[in-house]
Amino acid sequence: MPRFFIDSEPTDFITVTGSDARHIGYSLRMKNGDSIIFCRMGTDYFCTITEMTESSVTCRIDRSEPSKCEPNISLTLYQAFPKQDKFEQIIQKTVELGIVRIVPFISNRCVSRPNKADFAKKLERFQRISEEAAKQSGRGIIPEIAPILSLEEAIEDMNGCSLKLICYENGGEKLSSLNLEKHKSIGIMIGSEGGFERSEVEKAVSSGAVPIWLGERILRCETCPVAMTAVIMNLTDNM
Amino acid sequence: MPRFFIDSEPTDFITVTGSDARHIGYSLRMKNGDSIIFCRMGTDYFCTITEMTESSVTCRIDRSEPSKCEPNISLTLYQAFPKQDKFEQIIQKTVELGIVRIVPFISNRCVSRPNKADFAKKLERFQRISEEAAKQSGRGIIPEIAPILSLEEAIEDMNGCSLKLICYENGGEKLSSLNLEKHKSIGIMIGSEGGFERSEVEKAVSSGAVPIWLGERILRCETCPVAMTAVIMNLTDNM
Repeated sequence: MPRFFIDSEPTDFITVTGSDARHIGYSLRMKNGDSIIFCRMGTDYFCTITEMTESSVTCRIDRSEPSKCEPNISLTLYQAFPKQDKFEQIIQKTVELGIVRIVPFISNRCVSRPNKADFAKKLERFQRISEEAAKQSGRGIIPEIAPILSLEEAIEDMNGCSLKLICYENGGEKLSSLNLEKHKSIGIMIGSEGGFERSEVEKAVSSGAVPIWLGERILRCETCPVAMTAVIMNLTDNM
Repeated sequence: MPRFFIDSEPTDFITVTGSDARHIGYSLRMKNGDSIIFCRMGTDYFCTITEMTESSVTCRIDRSEPSKCEPNISLTLYQAFPKQDKFEQIIQKTVELGIVRIVPFISNRCVSRPNKADFAKKLERFQRISEEAAKQSGRGIIPEIAPILSLEEAIEDMNGCSLKLICYENGGEKLSSLNLEKHKSIGIMIGSEGGFERSEVEKAVSSGAVPIWLGERILRCETCPVAMTAVIMNLTDNM
């Protein structure tokens, strides 16, 4: 069933305008009486379209319930910013798999190194990719793409997670050896092309992060977050 | 360490010509005395460069051992052929994660439907993407990209696997509920855009495949094989 996100808490009816209204009326060719889901902060509102104009769609809320699609853990990805369109691929695929928030940061080996102002100009586009992936996969929230941080700021931010992980190709724990299920919030820190320098991993470890080793095969920087998210969702019974 | 694949079983020395020789000499700027790995069918040959000409590189084999990077299960992906460059993305990422063979096939909902002859023209390119991903990730083999099959032929081919799985968004077993470790060869069948029709899943199931449900979130057809490969490698202690 088509799925759209709304910003404010609705009462009995929901009226949408702008691109979502055009999408409902013109692209999807929906009409009065059709069923549609609106979603806000983890709640799904099951609605019936009651009125359509050139520029707006009004729907009656039939019932609401917590979104079934949200995982029971809050997983945040701390991703060293990669080259080209890889960050967009990472957003799209980790949002489908259940990530809650993505925090990009600059590490020593990042090739693409936008400053905060340059990155801020791209944020709207990145946030839109997150929204599209959330709609398509049936998520109950739109995962937040955070402003870009330094490594030190990202490590500080990750202190908000009860379990902190950093992927390191030169060795660490296996994911399966950790008791993930007892944690409600997990942060995973992943390098850009070329991975992390040892001193960077040591900084994260001294702040409480567990180094994770994904085995002998070296994953590309855009494959690693997708694989990690899938495996963590599986190990926490969310997939 | 740089890594190249060879076709025939070597004795004491390995001589390469063509693009690999140019890559070693010009792109990597290697020289006599440098260390290099050649790889053939799961065996790594650790070598020292002994002679370089304009068009060839000769290396002495110092020792050989089974490649550490090969998983202990043989995982074959049966992938309904997707649109655009998604098949290339799937090859690249599942090869990094440890797939052994990829078999594309045409199902009812495939949008891109090349016939066998048209597909055969692209096979060399797909095989090259597999080789590049195998080199980059440190694999011990170059996973085979098979010619394109019909659904029925793919189901027949999958009978060679001891465990046969088909991903179905409308329900099935959870991956974690299966005892994967007792199987040496696993086949996973995954749909294209729009997934499988019920009758297609029933055909696979009547041939012994287990339907697998990956949870409430709907994955894109190019995300699903990457997630499945990562989770299976984790559950079989290969990641």
